[in-house]
Amino acid sequence: MRHLVLSTLASLLVVSTLNAQTRTVAERLGHPKDAKLLILHADDIGVAHSENAASFDALDKGVVNSGSIMMPTPWVTEVAEYAKKHPNADLGLHLTLNAEWNTYRWGGVAPHDKTPSLHDPDGTLPRSTDTVAKRAKLDEVELELRAQIDRAYAMGIKPTHVDSHMYALYGTPELFRTYARVARSYKLPFLGVFDSPTAAIRSELLPTDIVPDAVIMRMEKGTPAEWRKYYLDVIRNMKPGLTVMLVHLGYDNDELRAVTTGWDSWGADWRQRDVDVLSSAEFRQALRDNNIVMVTWRDIQKAMYPTP
Amino acid sequence: MRHLVLSTLASLLVVSTLNAQTRTVAERLGHPKDAKLLILHADDIGVAHSENAASFDALDKGVVNSGSIMMPTPWVTEVAEYAKKHPNADLGLHLTLNAEWNTYRWGGVAPHDKTPSLHDPDGTLPRSTDTVAKRAKLDEVELELRAQIDRAYAMGIKPTHVDSHMYALYGTPELFRTYARVARSYKLPFLGVFDSPTAAIRSELLPTDIVPDAVIMRMEKGTPAEWRKYYLDVIRNMKPGLTVMLVHLGYDNDELRAVTTGWDSWGADWRQRDVDVLSSAEFRQALRDNNIVMVTWRDIQKAMYPTP
Repeated sequence: MRHLVLSTLASLLVVSTLNAQTRTVAERLGHPKDAKLLILHADDIGVAHSENAASFDALDKGVVNSGSIMMPTPWVTEVAEYAKKHPNADLGLHLTLNAEWNTYRWGGVAPHDKTPSLHDPDGTLPRSTDTVAKRAKLDEVELELRAQIDRAYAMGIKPTHVDSHMYALYGTPELFRTYARVARSYKLPFLGVFDSPTAAIRSELLPTDIVPDAVIMRMEKGTPAEWRKYYLDVIRNMKPGLTVMLVHLGYDNDELRAVTTGWDSWGADWRQRDVDVLSSAEFRQALRDNNIVMVTWRDIQKAMYPTP
Repeated sequence: MRHLVLSTLASLLVVSTLNAQTRTVAERLGHPKDAKLLILHADDIGVAHSENAASFDALDKGVVNSGSIMMPTPWVTEVAEYAKKHPNADLGLHLTLNAEWNTYRWGGVAPHDKTPSLHDPDGTLPRSTDTVAKRAKLDEVELELRAQIDRAYAMGIKPTHVDSHMYALYGTPELFRTYARVARSYKLPFLGVFDSPTAAIRSELLPTDIVPDAVIMRMEKGTPAEWRKYYLDVIRNMKPGLTVMLVHLGYDNDELRAVTTGWDSWGADWRQRDVDVLSSAEFRQALRDNNIVMVTWRDIQKAMYPTP
């Protein structure tokens, strides 16, 4: 996920409209209208052992309370072992149509001969989301998304939600429609907002979808001090309603430096910084001081689909 | 590769018979009959960044002079980058029908819906070579082997040879026949000997195949001192003819410990020990003291297929 996502006035209006006939998201989740609800969510689980180890430790300690798994990634089998041993962990699927790194790349889950528009000639998914938007055929996208979800269940993972790696599935209204339709067909809530959604994409949301009021992600490089200030400011400035904070956890070690080689952002140091700030006493205290109420995608799933 | 491979009297007799009408392997490679020829060969390239980094460093420094790549593994795209930058590196394919580790597992290269007999229900290759011998359908094996070789070429790798990860392709005479036929059809030499080959398997070898006189691999756990003694003894005791020494290089770090978790042998420390002994001054001196002549699979390929 690459883009800073803050609920703009426009998207707040959409949400308000969507929920106008009913109740606020906070109320639909069983909280007072003025409650500040937060999902602290680790993206990119499965890519590397370093990211898995950091994410599992954060989940175990309550440093994050949710996360999503990339099914086509090399270390996904380690995630399946964790998920089976931690059936209450709030784990969803980070639906993946890209393999962005320079020298460490994967292909999709569905048979590649049935998904040629999703793959480069060497059998890997493309680096860029633009390639997905331009080249991916919708029926092949649907096949791949279903294959990823089906493989999760086959491996013993019971996802609580889905979202979209690098926001590839927000690339066109048609991609978003496919994403939303697949998610609903599995009774899985999906992350339905991002930065600058077009009217065409917003129109795909249904009143029954529960959509966060704000999505927050660190996008700029910075010093550890700037990193700390950014996250503390986010907590201090949180508004009533549901906020999803997307973080990218990993240990700054040989493996993760090799995974992210040649990248100026989103590298091993970046992910270590997320680990360091989120697990700090200061950040935990900020959550308490600002009366933040932690909720999970499982709560949303139960509210959207009371009878699974 | 799991089994100790030493040229037994039986297999030496086979080789002698095969070469009876012609010349010894040493002579066919352009060396005197009494030359002691050695290929120092790193297996398992592609599995992990740790193994890649250690193998690339050893290739760059001449610590090994050959190696083979596992095409279905997660880090194979990093190997392809190395191979393209080092077109003279003697790299073959470690044809792979297994994913042996506990929590880090991969599937095959061919479309999985066309190779169901090769896969477990979660889409991974089986841990055991016995499962391959019992369950794998030969047409699916051939499809997968060809897909692995084709993917290598598609990624810019020009293999000099093939061999068989964990010796899975020696599991039955039919598997070996498939392996040999596929290798010959691509004009790729293949590792044709291993421990205790049955007469049925030996009968698959043709006089045109160039077959090593001995294959050496460390099989037992041991202290660093025992490790050192083992490899030095191998060099001191080398006989005239072609010996292939299979080693498994990797750095003992977090990543490789996670890859090999739960394994008593072949772990991160094991692979670090191979790195340490092979790169030692003492081992390099032993090669010189014993008049060892280094040859590569590329030399064998040129001798077997002079017009590519």
